[in-house]
Amino acid sequence: MADAAAEKSADKTPRTARGRKTQRALLDAAEAEFGERGFHESSIVSITKRAGVALGTFYTYFDSKDALFRALVRDMSGRVKDAVAPAIAGIEDPVGREGAALEAFLGFARDHKEIYRIIDEAEFVAPDSWREHYERTAARILERLQEAAAEGAISGPIDEVHAWALMGMNVFLGLKFGVMDEDRPVGEVARIANALIAKGLAR
Amino acid sequence: MADAAAEKSADKTPRTARGRKTQRALLDAAEAEFGERGFHESSIVSITKRAGVALGTFYTYFDSKDALFRALVRDMSGRVKDAVAPAIAGIEDPVGREGAALEAFLGFARDHKEIYRIIDEAEFVAPDSWREHYERTAARILERLQEAAAEGAISGPIDEVHAWALMGMNVFLGLKFGVMDEDRPVGEVARIANALIAKGLAR
Repeated sequence: MADAAAEKSADKTPRTARGRKTQRALLDAAEAEFGERGFHESSIVSITKRAGVALGTFYTYFDSKDALFRALVRDMSGRVKDAVAPAIAGIEDPVGREGAALEAFLGFARDHKEIYRIIDEAEFVAPDSWREHYERTAARILERLQEAAAEGAISGPIDEVHAWALMGMNVFLGLKFGVMDEDRPVGEVARIANALIAKGLAR
Repeated sequence: MADAAAEKSADKTPRTARGRKTQRALLDAAEAEFGERGFHESSIVSITKRAGVALGTFYTYFDSKDALFRALVRDMSGRVKDAVAPAIAGIEDPVGREGAALEAFLGFARDHKEIYRIIDEAEFVAPDSWREHYERTAARILERLQEAAAEGAISGPIDEVHAWALMGMNVFLGLKFGVMDEDRPVGEVARIANALIAKGLAR
């Protein structure tokens, strides 16, 4: 059912620049609204008001509040990816690359604190989107590490366990040092965590 | 308010073995009910039925569904701690100790899959209990690692970043290999993750 709904929403992909701008305004308004009030207390009326879009226009872009929420989870998941990609492009050292990915993610989390509330609420409101977000993120980390291990640049063999371990580390460091506390510089947090995955704790 | 409520519930601590047994039955029923149906769809009536306890008796132990939920988060948090403690007692090597802690936690997560849904929902239903759970867990890891670093058994300095990184790793490995997939032996998952925190990925 979720797949069918996703496909139906995909049919609503805007074809003009103006349409894309309106869709973007609705997603940004949804980010603020869902982040602030949570899914159940949020309303389409309030989201369209925030976006400065007529209520009727909403349905040109999304079928329902539920479809908008799922689109937002996919959108934020993609924006995390897009925030990390340029930060790691051209970094040859694979461990340093993961450190740069973490630093970029911490910066993103600080600028978009709503992301935690939204992705975390997806576990209950849109569990398939929630699971997809983590599976895709883990798959990207796994691919980077397996390539590096194949080139002999890190010690292998690399396993899904490594990918989920690094992702969990990043998610919780983002929660602690991106959302809860803002006093530690993100570069410092990333450097300490990166030294851990570089050399470990053993003497 | 949450503190006042917690204190009030604390006053309801049963003083007899029979009272403790009834309270335990209510917590176990709550674990099943909240884990299955989520907080909003769960009811005191249904929880007392599951527990085989008269509805009126409920209020001898808890003030409200909300108070029960908060007590359950504290209870599960304590049970994770109690599941890990004997598994790491007497392990001298501090890195191996963290691996044993992870293995014990993975086993607990497999046996109590509801824990994720309950702790994760606490972010929305009982945010103070949710935060307390993670802060206490991180504090325990930090204490273990700082002691080991002070003894020169692992390379320091140890920082909150290490504690949150390890906790995040454990939480996501529990989600993936405790709750989502059951085919990997927990010992194997713990061994791979532990090698990562022992020696890191660098060649």
